Amino acid sequence: MPRLENIGCLATCASPSQQDDIGLVRDAALVWRDDLVRWAGPAAALPPEYLEEPAWDAGGRLVIPGLVDAHTHLAFGGWRAGEFADRIRGRGYLEIAADGGGIASTVRATRALDEATLLQRAGRFLSEMVSLGITTVEAKSGYGLDLETELTLLRVYRRLDKRGPARIVPTCLAAHVVPREWAADRAGYVDLVVDEILPAVAAEGLADFVDVFVEDGAFSADEARRICARGRALGLRAKLHVDQLSGGGGAELAAEVEAVSADHLECVSEAGIAALAEARVVAVTLPLATLYLDQAPPPARALIDAGVAVAVASDFNPGTAPSYHLPFALTLACARQRMTPAEALKGATRYAARAVGLEGTVGSLQPGAAADFALIDAPDVEHWLYHLRPNACTATVIGGTVRYGTVPGA
Amino acid sequence: MPRLENIGCLATCASPSQQDDIGLVRDAALVWRDDLVRWAGPAAALPPEYLEEPAWDAGGRLVIPGLVDAHTHLAFGGWRAGEFADRIRGRGYLEIAADGGGIASTVRATRALDEATLLQRAGRFLSEMVSLGITTVEAKSGYGLDLETELTLLRVYRRLDKRGPARIVPTCLAAHVVPREWAADRAGYVDLVVDEILPAVAAEGLADFVDVFVEDGAFSADEARRICARGRALGLRAKLHVDQLSGGGGAELAAEVEAVSADHLECVSEAGIAALAEARVVAVTLPLATLYLDQAPPPARALIDAGVAVAVASDFNPGTAPSYHLPFALTLACARQRMTPAEALKGATRYAARAVGLEGTVGSLQPGAAADFALIDAPDVEHWLYHLRPNACTATVIGGTVRYGTVPGA
Repeated sequence: MPRLENIGCLATCASPSQQDDIGLVRDAALVWRDDLVRWAGPAAALPPEYLEEPAWDAGGRLVIPGLVDAHTHLAFGGWRAGEFADRIRGRGYLEIAADGGGIASTVRATRALDEATLLQRAGRFLSEMVSLGITTVEAKSGYGLDLETELTLLRVYRRLDKRGPARIVPTCLAAHVVPREWAADRAGYVDLVVDEILPAVAAEGLADFVDVFVEDGAFSADEARRICARGRALGLRAKLHVDQLSGGGGAELAAEVEAVSADHLECVSEAGIAALAEARVVAVTLPLATLYLDQAPPPARALIDAGVAVAVASDFNPGTAPSYHLPFALTLACARQRMTPAEALKGATRYAARAVGLEGTVGSLQPGAAADFALIDAPDVEHWLYHLRPNACTATVIGGTVRYGTVPGA
Repeated sequence: MPRLENIGCLATCASPSQQDDIGLVRDAALVWRDDLVRWAGPAAALPPEYLEEPAWDAGGRLVIPGLVDAHTHLAFGGWRAGEFADRIRGRGYLEIAADGGGIASTVRATRALDEATLLQRAGRFLSEMVSLGITTVEAKSGYGLDLETELTLLRVYRRLDKRGPARIVPTCLAAHVVPREWAADRAGYVDLVVDEILPAVAAEGLADFVDVFVEDGAFSADEARRICARGRALGLRAKLHVDQLSGGGGAELAAEVEAVSADHLECVSEAGIAALAEARVVAVTLPLATLYLDQAPPPARALIDAGVAVAVASDFNPGTAPSYHLPFALTLACARQRMTPAEALKGATRYAARAVGLEGTVGSLQPGAAADFALIDAPDVEHWLYHLRPNACTATVIGGTVRYGTVPGA
């Protein structure tokens, strides 16, 4: 059984409650067998049966559970750098979308690529994410918006998950926006999602979740209810994009449909916060999208104070969050959402795992969990998220195997 | 004479005016001799006498002038990650300072280190800055606050500059705050700066600029006037920290003392903007400090519209801007200060060079300028600052020599 020794500071994130309880252990050791953790705790308490084999050396570094990015749009064609400059010059997100830019422009670029090209592009992003210490990635379709392309995107995610090294959690976001060709028949597109796309996705086992962008210019609450109900009947739990650009009772809707997560929430109301707490829905905050759209941040402190588990994810996509730098998103969550570094880490590990239905399996380091962890060149979590560097991760281990960087002894 | 070919997009930043004129050339070539640029322009117009020698291959990438970080506090002891978490929990910057934290805490940690240790630490930061495409760094003293330690910090910068590869512009910031031991005798500390520290610094030729932190809890306008006047008599031009935490006519003061730059400006007034424009003072904005202190950004658009040259720098320091990721600061300047990517780049090249007295020498690529440039893995400037990656720089060249990464043919 391999073990990692000389861990200056270990954050196990083993506790299922308390946003700021990240299970800190100074001078720690970690033992795994095959791909699962066997033991984690203070080096001084390491049971003697684990002492025999040669150890890997963490060099006194911080060790964290492999990061879980609970909200990405990983596979897409093209980019939209021009819109970034347009927004700076004062054009609104919805205005750009109304002119055929925004999501519609990425849909055109995505439909123009074949599966192999989409796989190659997404795989390149994923490699750089793994180098940042990310080991599990939720990945949404939603740039196909027709049966074939939605299936293609989800098949890309299945292939990425099989090929490894990162774990992929696929989500069907066929209800991202109404595509142009259905503009005159919204109900027809919702029918297509409900009657054809979701059943086909479920039949091939291509997604774990169904997601809907609930917003002016995207889908109404009633449309979302219908899509989520169909998803649930097919075994797909809901995740929802809500209360991003306008507050419209989105959080309340997420609670009503028993979504596993409500994502964005820049404009969530007090009633919405209470509803999320009551229904135990994870709030997924997306500080990069908030930054790129120059919005006021979501009320993370009010959510935490109300007892809501707050996750932090990248929202990586080519429009409103063109970065997969999750550690940077965590620093933003600290600086702008007033989450402490411990709270932010919990939001990208244990609570992010909860948001993708994998709590206890990934995102924490206790016996039975996946041996997914990252070595960080920092003395502790506060220093890591405070001293923002290009990349402070020196090694990423997934299922007990080094997938990025080097670990002496490994 | 070596040349760089196959440049997909070259930003020469050769124009001294217009914040958004970055001298873009598609399909460009660049020629240098020894350490100075000889020719820059469209590859199709390359004069035949430069065609003979083997070329370096930019691989179709974006090439920019080496970045100039016009405001850093590069050499210091210790870190202050705990204060980062304290501020998130609601403690104010001035409150932390009043309790012996803040700058005073870094002063204690800095005085405890010897010159060799300070050199080694600052050198490590500088290496990572070079890997980001940064080739010139303004570096302030100000964590010594006594004659010996201020001289030590400035000697560290002289050694770093001599050793290379990056160029260092040293600034004496003995007037950072009044140190504890002078708390009961502010005037006595100003006398020390004026009568002993500045003359000693000038006698050894250790600084190009004198800087004063003008703020409640730091120095008054009258104290700053006295210090700047003495600096000027000794051949040191002024740079000022002004209008950061409170608006107190700091920009007007910078104009009055003919400072080369006025830095921070989160709280600058309309009259202050007009004064900067009239006196042709460079406005140095510091989006990382704005972010870490969770402030509203400085009015970059109003400054640009008034004709002020706006630079963007990191403010790297262990308290309010613990990051030297200047490209990330540029993305923040775009997203939060509403500067276009071209405007932000000009602010970290040509206008940053102006802020450190080196305009035309570094920060732009025209005949006679230093052959300092960076290869960026992006098709253009907009894409580079939009798609925020850990590090998009693939090679940094300083004075015609590759100092980071590799360039085929070099």
